[in-house]
Amino acid sequence: MFPELLNHRAEQVSARLNAAVLATPPHRLRDAMLHAVSGGKRLRAFLVIEGAAMFDVPAAQAVQAAAAVEAIHAYSLVHDDLPAMDDDDLRRGQPTVHVKWDEATAVLVGDGLQSLAFDLLADPAMGPHRADLVASLAKAAGAMVLGQAQDIAAETADTPLTLDQITTLQANKTGALIAWSAEAGARLAGEDPAPLTSYATALGLAFQIADDILDVEGSADKTGKRVGKDAEAGKATFVSLLGLDAAKNRAGELVQQACDALANYGERAESLRAAARFVISRES
Amino acid sequence: MFPELLNHRAEQVSARLNAAVLATPPHRLRDAMLHAVSGGKRLRAFLVIEGAAMFDVPAAQAVQAAAAVEAIHAYSLVHDDLPAMDDDDLRRGQPTVHVKWDEATAVLVGDGLQSLAFDLLADPAMGPHRADLVASLAKAAGAMVLGQAQDIAAETADTPLTLDQITTLQANKTGALIAWSAEAGARLAGEDPAPLTSYATALGLAFQIADDILDVEGSADKTGKRVGKDAEAGKATFVSLLGLDAAKNRAGELVQQACDALANYGERAESLRAAARFVISRES
Repeated sequence: MFPELLNHRAEQVSARLNAAVLATPPHRLRDAMLHAVSGGKRLRAFLVIEGAAMFDVPAAQAVQAAAAVEAIHAYSLVHDDLPAMDDDDLRRGQPTVHVKWDEATAVLVGDGLQSLAFDLLADPAMGPHRADLVASLAKAAGAMVLGQAQDIAAETADTPLTLDQITTLQANKTGALIAWSAEAGARLAGEDPAPLTSYATALGLAFQIADDILDVEGSADKTGKRVGKDAEAGKATFVSLLGLDAAKNRAGELVQQACDALANYGERAESLRAAARFVISRES
Repeated sequence: MFPELLNHRAEQVSARLNAAVLATPPHRLRDAMLHAVSGGKRLRAFLVIEGAAMFDVPAAQAVQAAAAVEAIHAYSLVHDDLPAMDDDDLRRGQPTVHVKWDEATAVLVGDGLQSLAFDLLADPAMGPHRADLVASLAKAAGAMVLGQAQDIAAETADTPLTLDQITTLQANKTGALIAWSAEAGARLAGEDPAPLTSYATALGLAFQIADDILDVEGSADKTGKRVGKDAEAGKATFVSLLGLDAAKNRAGELVQQACDALANYGERAESLRAAARFVISRES
């Protein structure tokens, strides 16, 4: 069953991520880093580990690559939550780092987690293709930062974003890291990741549409973060542009596209298909 | 002459760094990144390029590795200058990023520059040892963040730091990145970087003592940043702990140690020796 497998992968990656943080010297900063990497669905980790299994990558390498992308994701959340950015005080059901510690600590936690991600990925244990993994993750992390800057710029722009603009923005902000996760297994195996790109592109977009739907229909209790933020901020989202029903239909179509893109992999890709179906059915 | 060679290396690394930033999509964020990477002495770049020349590393690889470490250094300055951190409005004689743009942009500029550094270093053009360079730079960047956290913690501690504690703090905050720079050439060549570690350790400490002396004796005009900050904040520094004269003597001894550590390299290491002498004679 998908939820059990997702939980199992989440436990594996959490253990690896905690061990990596705990390998750094004891300090208040380390406590805050541990807090920042805890919780979450670990969807990116799931994509890495299940994608890697399709290419018979050793499990330890897959889990370590998954820990790297979750470290990048966690750093981005800590920085996005800062008062100067989205100013959120709740994340994954817990107080955000700048609330529980302070802003300076939150900046440093994010910075340290980004370094840790590349440290994990460049480890000799990661095999002969580790530099390619670093280069592609660095590009995805750069795109993510650009997407966040585009998102902030949109909030103060005179005209709301068009559907094309919001699609580009989200492809940067969340799509690039999701795509990297789906492609990481192929890269670890030294195989061409291109066949997974169609899957990942459709999945990333479906994920963001589902996020916009959750911001309208979800509860803070289940999502572990503040909801209704987008409408409050008057932000253009897939829901505001398409309407709720059309957004749901579009997300469903994208999941179908994502699944279809994996046709050549047959049964081996069943976990990735389940992940695609999950992103639009999740409640958090 | 050393100043001319330093300038020449600075121009080479600045050109590479600008090109790397300009290869990202045009955006307000990119303008701010260009601002953040401009100026500076480029001492770390000098150490990388001259260190690499000792091992006959191709110049293009050396300059690109130098651009990577300067990107990390620039990111750290942008984040350190934030209001929640050191709250500085002047850097390299120019307004800081959060002053000229805003805090959110400054956070994202730093984040993007860290990603860019690893992107540059993991580039296939960097040769067969690029993953080792990434792993070692990621560790140095992690140490730098810890050093900054230790520095902030020291400001609010009940008792001032001891000489041992401040030495550890600075070895993390500035020493690790300087050491990486000195060792990068050996790593690029696949040689053991250990012989350069004694040089780099002594150099890094001399550099920080000189920084503390400049904070007392320097001018904002020449340093391009606010001076007198440490005394104002009642911070323990090498100068407050040792006294000005003993601090100068100690820096001189460390430079001698750094030069002696290069004895086996003979004439080839003359540039690195000149760099060591420079760090305690500089006015900025």
